[in-house]
Amino acid sequence: MDTSRSAAEARDAADPLAGFRARFAGTEDNGPDRLLYLDGNSLGRMPRETPAALARVVEQEWAGGLVGSWSAWIGHSTRLGDALAAGVIGARPGEVLVADSTSVNLYKLLVAAADARPGRDVIVACADDFPTDRYIVAGVAAARGMTVRELPADLDEGLDPAVLAGALDERVAVVVLSSVAYRSGALHDVAAVTRLVHDAGALVLWDLSHAAGAVEVDLAGADADLAVGCTYKYLNGGPGAPAFLYVRRDLQEQLRQPIWGWFGQRDQFEMGPAYDPVPGIERFAVGTPPIVAMAAVEVGIGLVAEAGIGAVAAKGRALGELMVALADEWLAPHGVAPASPRDAGRRGAHVTVAHPAAWQLTQALVDRGVVPDFRTPDRVRLGPAPLYTRFVDVWDAMDRFRRLLESGEYAGYPAEHARVT
Amino acid sequence: MDTSRSAAEARDAADPLAGFRARFAGTEDNGPDRLLYLDGNSLGRMPRETPAALARVVEQEWAGGLVGSWSAWIGHSTRLGDALAAGVIGARPGEVLVADSTSVNLYKLLVAAADARPGRDVIVACADDFPTDRYIVAGVAAARGMTVRELPADLDEGLDPAVLAGALDERVAVVVLSSVAYRSGALHDVAAVTRLVHDAGALVLWDLSHAAGAVEVDLAGADADLAVGCTYKYLNGGPGAPAFLYVRRDLQEQLRQPIWGWFGQRDQFEMGPAYDPVPGIERFAVGTPPIVAMAAVEVGIGLVAEAGIGAVAAKGRALGELMVALADEWLAPHGVAPASPRDAGRRGAHVTVAHPAAWQLTQALVDRGVVPDFRTPDRVRLGPAPLYTRFVDVWDAMDRFRRLLESGEYAGYPAEHARVT
Repeated sequence: MDTSRSAAEARDAADPLAGFRARFAGTEDNGPDRLLYLDGNSLGRMPRETPAALARVVEQEWAGGLVGSWSAWIGHSTRLGDALAAGVIGARPGEVLVADSTSVNLYKLLVAAADARPGRDVIVACADDFPTDRYIVAGVAAARGMTVRELPADLDEGLDPAVLAGALDERVAVVVLSSVAYRSGALHDVAAVTRLVHDAGALVLWDLSHAAGAVEVDLAGADADLAVGCTYKYLNGGPGAPAFLYVRRDLQEQLRQPIWGWFGQRDQFEMGPAYDPVPGIERFAVGTPPIVAMAAVEVGIGLVAEAGIGAVAAKGRALGELMVALADEWLAPHGVAPASPRDAGRRGAHVTVAHPAAWQLTQALVDRGVVPDFRTPDRVRLGPAPLYTRFVDVWDAMDRFRRLLESGEYAGYPAEHARVT
Repeated sequence: MDTSRSAAEARDAADPLAGFRARFAGTEDNGPDRLLYLDGNSLGRMPRETPAALARVVEQEWAGGLVGSWSAWIGHSTRLGDALAAGVIGARPGEVLVADSTSVNLYKLLVAAADARPGRDVIVACADDFPTDRYIVAGVAAARGMTVRELPADLDEGLDPAVLAGALDERVAVVVLSSVAYRSGALHDVAAVTRLVHDAGALVLWDLSHAAGAVEVDLAGADADLAVGCTYKYLNGGPGAPAFLYVRRDLQEQLRQPIWGWFGQRDQFEMGPAYDPVPGIERFAVGTPPIVAMAAVEVGIGLVAEAGIGAVAAKGRALGELMVALADEWLAPHGVAPASPRDAGRRGAHVTVAHPAAWQLTQALVDRGVVPDFRTPDRVRLGPAPLYTRFVDVWDAMDRFRRLLESGEYAGYPAEHARVT
């Protein structure tokens, strides 16, 4: 690979997604000292259309239409879900709902899945999965007297399917796994893992938080059972934006989630005496949907769908390849080693590097206009979101990283981290 | 009471809260054909400050500060909770959290309460409580093999404390009750009911959805255990705005909610292996807080706090008294009977009337610029939100109601309702 800056410029010139950068706020400054934001995998940038979309929903629909606007709002969770299904995660209409937080959705589907496999008392999870996934699993297992079979994951390469296969038996009710590992970016084969889990008679619940809007996901093709995910990372829905959940259509009537809220009720406004969930995906809804927040999510989903998830994922792989090549060339001599799968086909859109002073490096990078993400204990995550990150941005970020390492100035930063995100 | 329109005008002229009306969108048209919005108890009007608050959080904090803004956002759920505690519901600092939906919060606290009373197998609830409350109770009871003891409530007068007292025994773990009944507006005595429940060794979980921002609530004074509530009604936080929960401080460490999300974790960003909830109210948090939506909630809470809940509640009682007097004078002769407690001290800020053709009346009123709320099977709810509803608005709305009854035109509307809200 030609790792020169001019080669990066040439790739930007040929990038079919180049036009999307200007549709995000904060991308207008292209000078040499500009902010190089590599944390779109934590909080995506704001689409420029978002303020107008929010103003429209509050000023026209809320202030103007008042309670009458519910006749339109009532279907927003499924309409947005269908947009996500079609444009981003490869599901069918009526299989996806935008609602609640990722953690709450994970809880709902995990309890529903465990209930659907009576007599099985094991939940399989990954020891290096995102904390909330592990905690939710632990809570559900504790409440039900189930056992968590925690798989040792390779921190860099993710979960080995052979390790998973060895953990599956007739005791396993559900497997919970992130399709892209939050730490290393390791990309799991959703279809292959789903087959393994199905062969054991269990259900699989995917967390797509670091995958949706970053890599191709084909839930229908993989025959995936259940999934949840976040919309504020690569879907650019805003801080704390509502999450989504997916339930394969033929499973919907077999499953019943534990939080019997009125938005899951058949003939909701009859307000009848007994809970009787609707047949479709809405049975996984609980309370009143977050209409204002969903207006921002709709913009974010729309941009990914417009760009095409195939093109987005391809650019993500290319940005990652450049990043790995530059890390090998510039950072590795200073002891900063790539800690993600080297094959772009086995990686999401972020690349992680490891160094004992990762927290100090993170602070020093932020002071130098590069925003990565620190992950305990010794990782720096670099997430060049494909819709608004250019090849020269990756090049310049890695160049600043190299110069920081050469200067040794990071050693002057506090080693003890008390960071909030 | 002088029920003339000029008396209503005089009361508006003397209203200390009169200035708040102009701070809500849609209140500028004061002509005779203006919209008379009496559904603030379902969806409150939009404060004029809200669009700017949303623009600020997305354009400055999100687009400008990016992921670094989390250092401020991380405490938003408790800061907003503290504002609600101090200004609206009479709780202490560190006892209230803004998060999730009312239904999800009810679920979390109900499971936590049931866990805290092992060996007790009954949940007491009210047969005429809001549907989501009844459904959540039913779901938790079903999952745990508990029994729901459903109290027959008088639809008009609410729950008789003597009926409740008769239902309390050593089997009862939790009592779930709305402090203002969603249908009739009946106001329960939070302190007296709490004492009754405590005497039986049980916990009480209040739903404040129709109370918060409408009547005085003194959770601390009542020694209330647990509460949840909604912010999109009298708190004007917007459609589907995040809800709140309250846990009395001395109970917090005794209780553990079932959805072990990462925002309830001690040392959250250590991302440690085991869930270990923080000691305070944050242990009842689950996923990433809805930052954008909370900006609108903050405006709404701020307006009620600025007005003073005492003044708001007093005006609510006065508006209700005028409404009841006019209903007696104008509607009752047409068979439309008030179906709320007649004593303003035993009523929230809404008044309900009953008529067999309630759904037809509701449709006809909407067509005549009066927006009430239909509640099955035969009720019309009239919610004159004190912050933006004037005495002349109540007078004019009741006048249009009277003229509709005189004309009999409502009979031409569909009798079968398929309404979405």
